[in-house]
Amino acid sequence: MAQKIKLSTIAESLGLSTATISLALRDSPLVAADTREKIKEQARTLGYIYNRRAASLRTSRSGIIGVVVHDVMNPFYGEILKAIESELDRSRHTFILSNHYDSVEKQRTFIETLLQLGGDGVIMSPAIGTPIEDVKLAEQNGMPAILVARTMDGVDLPTYRGDDSYGISLATNHLIGLGHRTIAMIGGTDQTSTGRDRYQGYVNALRKANIEVDPNLRIPGPRSMQGGYEAAVNFLSLPQKPTAAVCWNDLVAIGLMNGIARAGLIVGQDISVTGYDDLEQAAISMPALTTVSNQQADVGRLAARALLDRLAGSHEPDGIHLIRPEMRIRQSTGICRPR
Amino acid sequence: MAQKIKLSTIAESLGLSTATISLALRDSPLVAADTREKIKEQARTLGYIYNRRAASLRTSRSGIIGVVVHDVMNPFYGEILKAIESELDRSRHTFILSNHYDSVEKQRTFIETLLQLGGDGVIMSPAIGTPIEDVKLAEQNGMPAILVARTMDGVDLPTYRGDDSYGISLATNHLIGLGHRTIAMIGGTDQTSTGRDRYQGYVNALRKANIEVDPNLRIPGPRSMQGGYEAAVNFLSLPQKPTAAVCWNDLVAIGLMNGIARAGLIVGQDISVTGYDDLEQAAISMPALTTVSNQQADVGRLAARALLDRLAGSHEPDGIHLIRPEMRIRQSTGICRPR
Repeated sequence: MAQKIKLSTIAESLGLSTATISLALRDSPLVAADTREKIKEQARTLGYIYNRRAASLRTSRSGIIGVVVHDVMNPFYGEILKAIESELDRSRHTFILSNHYDSVEKQRTFIETLLQLGGDGVIMSPAIGTPIEDVKLAEQNGMPAILVARTMDGVDLPTYRGDDSYGISLATNHLIGLGHRTIAMIGGTDQTSTGRDRYQGYVNALRKANIEVDPNLRIPGPRSMQGGYEAAVNFLSLPQKPTAAVCWNDLVAIGLMNGIARAGLIVGQDISVTGYDDLEQAAISMPALTTVSNQQADVGRLAARALLDRLAGSHEPDGIHLIRPEMRIRQSTGICRPR
Repeated sequence: MAQKIKLSTIAESLGLSTATISLALRDSPLVAADTREKIKEQARTLGYIYNRRAASLRTSRSGIIGVVVHDVMNPFYGEILKAIESELDRSRHTFILSNHYDSVEKQRTFIETLLQLGGDGVIMSPAIGTPIEDVKLAEQNGMPAILVARTMDGVDLPTYRGDDSYGISLATNHLIGLGHRTIAMIGGTDQTSTGRDRYQGYVNALRKANIEVDPNLRIPGPRSMQGGYEAAVNFLSLPQKPTAAVCWNDLVAIGLMNGIARAGLIVGQDISVTGYDDLEQAAISMPALTTVSNQQADVGRLAARALLDRLAGSHEPDGIHLIRPEMRIRQSTGICRPR
């Protein structure tokens, strides 16, 4: 466990009195707003824990593990969380959850709260733009961090996620095998490692089949059912007349399928659609969705075990653990028919 | 705030030494398992906080509010949580979440953890079978509790929920108005106040229209998409040949619609289906789902405000606040055609 940072360390580093530092960290109006901000920034950089009283509790284990992800309502994260939860339940740890909605500030508040509560560890799917210091804040205060679903450059933490590039290439190859040549990619963003990897997997599969990659066939957008539904109009009016769509995830795919059905076309016959994640609802959607199982249960279970192992003193080799996805072929894909 | 319970109080009440009590509460094998269980039970009844060190932190506010519901992955709870979260964000409170999956024990562990952490308050949708003492445990230790979505008999806590009986009668009346007479009710359970109220609302609406209530037209079951999907076979093979289904919630309705579509029937023409909750996905399902808005955002917002008001010292009159639901008519319901 790293050495505890003292108020005096912060004071010295900024050439201020410890009293000023203490007041600033308590948000006292006696310290000018600018100075307060500067002090807090420095405290954060050094990895200071605000509440010393609570910090004193940390000599013993609290049994509390924090989990913070983009949005627990997204069933993809939900399935990871369920697996983490059942693993932690077995070891009698308490599990507290939070959403960051890709707000770095919200995520930092959660980590700071966990430190104040004496949390034993944190499992996180880092918010877009997370600075390395925020993850170090946890580690340097003796609270191990494990990453799930998203990678962070420049940190050497155990990271558990699906092999997105490979997974999306499975879906793309399946469509190519059915004769599709004009294949759009719907939903998602380049701002996360997942996003970049999925797009790359799609591009790689097309290139390998000697199909020209047309950047206009990519319709980025929200990773939600609503996002997929709204993309349907754009997708159907593309001048290239794509016969198939590789979707970012199952939610986008189900939304897109509903949008296509509203336009009077039959998914699986007129247009083929693939999802990603194999959520529970993929198998019972109409039509049943062809998708890629991202093995969320494995991601959550392995991440929770890695954390428990670290708490027990043993160390897995750090770094990225890629979980191998699998194809699930159902009724939303079929032989290519020109539109 | 109620008086703190001391170890000696528990000891006296059971005729045991305080040392035995202390050991038992720390799960020491020096105390026989039976006795430990008895002591813990008594400690719980009296409202004792296990971790006295943490308890001493509670002289000041921690800014932490706990929220525990059946399952945060259920979008119905998700939408309530989002509203609570945005209200608490504004007041700079930290929000920690947990699922109880209707396990009274899991819920109690969360309340105890919150007390140990010095939580300011708790918002809960009580697990089926929650004993009154578990809610009192929070209240008696100075941590106000607010209930959402479900009522508990015998406790006089502020409770915010939709008027389920009225809401389901809106859906049933809408179907009766379209000429339906053989209307099934799909999904749900009698074990929650919500379940009893929804069934009663359906029964009341039928009686008011002089339609005989046939208990065999009720197919109880899980409140999930999968539950609705699996109910489709039973529903379609009922000898009464129902022309419409009032579903427990949108998830059940969407699952049922997919099951009906798989059987080759057209929802909104051959069979009418109503949902409940008006989740985001109701409007974009195929066909668009006629449903009842349960005003989840209001439930969450009002509950969070009530808690913040109590923390600020003011008191809303306690008791049940029923939020009035509203009908959303879309494409999954249509004029009755005999099957």
